[in-house]
Amino acid sequence: MKIVVLAGGVGAARFLEGLVQITNPIDITVIVNTGDDEDFYGLRVCPDIDTILYTLSGNNNEKQGWGLKDETFAVSNQLGKFGYERWFMLGDKDFATHIHRTNLLQQKKTLSEITENLAKLFSLPIKLLPMSNDVVKTKVKTPHGILSFQEYFVKRKFQDTVLSVIFSGIKKAKPAPGVIEAINIAEAIIIAPSNPIVSIGTILAVPTITSHIKKSHAKKIAISPIIGGKAIKGPADIILTNLGIESSAFGVANIYKELLDTFILDAQDRFQKEKIEKLGMRVVTTNTIMKNLQTKKLLAQTVINTLCM
Amino acid sequence: MKIVVLAGGVGAARFLEGLVQITNPIDITVIVNTGDDEDFYGLRVCPDIDTILYTLSGNNNEKQGWGLKDETFAVSNQLGKFGYERWFMLGDKDFATHIHRTNLLQQKKTLSEITENLAKLFSLPIKLLPMSNDVVKTKVKTPHGILSFQEYFVKRKFQDTVLSVIFSGIKKAKPAPGVIEAINIAEAIIIAPSNPIVSIGTILAVPTITSHIKKSHAKKIAISPIIGGKAIKGPADIILTNLGIESSAFGVANIYKELLDTFILDAQDRFQKEKIEKLGMRVVTTNTIMKNLQTKKLLAQTVINTLCM
Repeated sequence: MKIVVLAGGVGAARFLEGLVQITNPIDITVIVNTGDDEDFYGLRVCPDIDTILYTLSGNNNEKQGWGLKDETFAVSNQLGKFGYERWFMLGDKDFATHIHRTNLLQQKKTLSEITENLAKLFSLPIKLLPMSNDVVKTKVKTPHGILSFQEYFVKRKFQDTVLSVIFSGIKKAKPAPGVIEAINIAEAIIIAPSNPIVSIGTILAVPTITSHIKKSHAKKIAISPIIGGKAIKGPADIILTNLGIESSAFGVANIYKELLDTFILDAQDRFQKEKIEKLGMRVVTTNTIMKNLQTKKLLAQTVINTLCM
Repeated sequence: MKIVVLAGGVGAARFLEGLVQITNPIDITVIVNTGDDEDFYGLRVCPDIDTILYTLSGNNNEKQGWGLKDETFAVSNQLGKFGYERWFMLGDKDFATHIHRTNLLQQKKTLSEITENLAKLFSLPIKLLPMSNDVVKTKVKTPHGILSFQEYFVKRKFQDTVLSVIFSGIKKAKPAPGVIEAINIAEAIIIAPSNPIVSIGTILAVPTITSHIKKSHAKKIAISPIIGGKAIKGPADIILTNLGIESSAFGVANIYKELLDTFILDAQDRFQKEKIEKLGMRVVTTNTIMKNLQTKKLLAQTVINTLCM
């Protein structure tokens, strides 16, 4: 069964860790948000792609929540001595990823070619596609000014009220090669438990992606990234609230209402089941908090089971 | 007294360590060979500039002969796992230099602006100028093919016979800002004990540099990099021999004969004194092997003393 997963960073990576265990990974195509990509020290960093690369290869620093495990920080320390800001901390091994990516970009390789190469280097069993090879920059309008997503998220620790979200460059962005093809042949399209505005929202804003998902005959399922009104990690709850959207499973389901067959929410949010069903989708409740491989596999199994319902 | 030093890498850096101790470093302008510069992993590496930066700031790895002391190699190890060749080893802190330089080049800063910035970051007391902001690539024609200088020197450990040396791009290269001005106001021009073909020869091949040195009223002194027929470090002796030039103090003096007032050679080569004097220059013999700071200072003092002779 051909599966497409729309993915942001940590939440998606955790879900995928379970999914690859219970399906044939060769059938999984992951379409990843690249709106958070940013250049640091002239090197291209793709946080969501890298989180998936590092997590699915078992190299992620799980405790820290970003980067590779067993890292050192010699390059970063030296760049700090040169006067660079270091709010986006990069480990030495992580630098190698960004040096390699930037080197290939300079050689006119596309981001999808580079991502395919990195997926191979990290022995990923799945197909990993950036949403687009064109540069899209997610920016956040705040009372403090317009910030890049990483400035808002990492540097200023999402302290600023989000007035609006801008996907700079999105109108001219084309889906990366393979994205539309994967959607068209998919039997299941899964929206990972990622930020519905700045992760999934960015992917869905790439011209023609949403219309192809709508046209697709695949089963379409989303997993709520909001549990008990809160995001497990990151600013999804705050951004939703700032934008006047209910920070709840229902709020997320409502964003996706024109796309979905099935919505999966955490058992503790089961009181919203009926309200969400009125949006025109089936609702499945389960444990969506992915604490360990067992819970990741169980969530993935629940998602796969809904496809046969 | 305004001093200009034409410099390659290690030999020049050692000489400068002594020179800054016995003169006012603010009066020293060092014009550095950039023909050996090469991009590794998409990052611009300037071996001669970096050797001088690291040595004069006391950060060089003296025992190893290249790079910074107290280095780690996490980035390089990771790039090795990605399949990159690693014959030109770069430490983690060293990577920071090249990341910073490449970042500034991408921002359209010139190599001289970047070198000035790095000299400041490494607290260098002297003025450091690349010979040119234009890319010049020193290549070596060998039976194994045309090699970049670093391929010939580091990768293939100067095992190939040098048929000829090519300074690719030299005809269009302009001296970097400040180079001609420094030569014009210099009271002394010192050719450091560097490779006369691929270090000093490259600088002298930049259009107008040699003619301005000839026109200059400065005292012009060279220190032989060849002692007892051999180079202290690197392939100078081999390259000279391959090119049919006598690998000796005389051979070097003969290359510089139209430029120099004074030639400084090692005491063990004093038997060549008269032969060199016949080239039309004064000859001073001293200990030119720079084993420690004391011998570096003594050599520098000998050079300065000849200016007053």
